[in-house]
Amino acid sequence: MLEDWDQEFIERAYAQAKKSYDEGGLPIGSVLARGSELIAEGHNQRVQKGDPIAHGEMDCLRKAGRQKSYRELTLYTSLSPCMMCSGTIVQFKIPRVVINDTENFGGNEEFLKSRGVEVIDAAHPASLELMARFIREKPDLWNEDIME
Amino acid sequence: MLEDWDQEFIERAYAQAKKSYDEGGLPIGSVLARGSELIAEGHNQRVQKGDPIAHGEMDCLRKAGRQKSYRELTLYTSLSPCMMCSGTIVQFKIPRVVINDTENFGGNEEFLKSRGVEVIDAAHPASLELMARFIREKPDLWNEDIME
Repeated sequence: MLEDWDQEFIERAYAQAKKSYDEGGLPIGSVLARGSELIAEGHNQRVQKGDPIAHGEMDCLRKAGRQKSYRELTLYTSLSPCMMCSGTIVQFKIPRVVINDTENFGGNEEFLKSRGVEVIDAAHPASLELMARFIREKPDLWNEDIME
Repeated sequence: MLEDWDQEFIERAYAQAKKSYDEGGLPIGSVLARGSELIAEGHNQRVQKGDPIAHGEMDCLRKAGRQKSYRELTLYTSLSPCMMCSGTIVQFKIPRVVINDTENFGGNEEFLKSRGVEVIDAAHPASLELMARFIREKPDLWNEDIME
């Protein structure tokens, strides 16, 4: 169920995706929050830093720094988490994930749910549109990012 | 099955773990190789860089930079991969993982095998001893790294 403050972070995750797109990178952004409190935000850094592990979610978690616990946090992501990011969500014991787009990429939602993670599909129109546009424009870069 | 060149990389993964231990960090190291050719090596950077996603395997994959494919590569790690690193191995389609220590930490070997990854337990005595020593010496840091 979406809370009142979720919409702001859904928009921030999209804004991070758009920032990365405008930089020539993969348009995938992420936000980490404790209730209505912003902890960190980040975006995919494959192009910008040549870093293959810096998916949006990972860049956000890196920027959040060392945390003693993630059990009260929500991770927002503009695109459904890949297996790397899903494994990280489980390992870090993040209990709640809000996803803007499960159409352009997906498939790990059931894995997350099977490990006790609450998964919410926010179906954010601008995120859906931006990712679809990027995949049309740069299919090679997209395939490299998901190792296809 | 271990190949002739594996032993060198098993030792290098341990050497990376020992380097991190000597720096005051978590003693977990990793190597990425294509047959007998070294691609990259790295170690846990939680203490050194304050980076919670930089487990040994992740630091190694970051240092390897952008790769078009991992399908001919082996990942060596001084300690059995957590769920983050296991998810990454699956996402990156790394077909073969050699683990120095499955005693001090483990549990994701079956997940990896279920996704088609060849998993080899090298049971490397120095790695087993170093990790056991570290967990005795710094249990709080160890628990933080695995989010317990």
